[in-house]
Amino acid sequence: MTGCSSIFADIPSRLPAELCQTLHAAPTARIERIVSRGHASAPDDWYDQAEDEWVIVLQGRARLAFADRAVLEMRAGDYLLIPAHCRHRVDWTDPDTETVWLAIHLESKSTSV
Amino acid sequence: MTGCSSIFADIPSRLPAELCQTLHAAPTARIERIVSRGHASAPDDWYDQAEDEWVIVLQGRARLAFADRAVLEMRAGDYLLIPAHCRHRVDWTDPDTETVWLAIHLESKSTSV
Repeated sequence: MTGCSSIFADIPSRLPAELCQTLHAAPTARIERIVSRGHASAPDDWYDQAEDEWVIVLQGRARLAFADRAVLEMRAGDYLLIPAHCRHRVDWTDPDTETVWLAIHLESKSTSV
Repeated sequence: MTGCSSIFADIPSRLPAELCQTLHAAPTARIERIVSRGHASAPDDWYDQAEDEWVIVLQGRARLAFADRAVLEMRAGDYLLIPAHCRHRVDWTDPDTETVWLAIHLESKSTSV
């Protein structure tokens, strides 16, 4: 066993675009770090993912919007499951600090699409 | 979309034993919250898991020990992958505050045991 890494390390001082990094890729799940600083989805740009995504905010603040018009304010520690094909977008992230997300993309065995 | 939960909420004020709660169970992965307060594995009590485990400390401090004698100090934000059958134990957790872990137990498709 060699050591551990910090989810808060190696964040570039400039973030022209949202930073997405795969921390671990397993056959059935992918664990990803996302770092935002004021980034948001373009208006009317909706994620419509084939897989369930379990996501937690570890630092910073964000707001998710859903196609059913629900809006979710999230801060450090807040998590939720975004089911496959639940259309959503990142409406806002804190422009004054890095928002660090941990996202777990879960392969759905039962998906036959 | 109904809302999100906080990983730091609903921690009992007394923790006679380590608290393990499944936050999400998918066919191929299980996401678990573990809360420790001074808890540790019994001496010579080693975890030897059939699945890979990706784990991150979200609050508090902990020390993991491995069968190869490696010792790992972990604090908030530190993460690692513990491969299947990598024998390890929780050597120490902070007795003065809750240590909150997020553990992702990953089914290994290639495991034929």
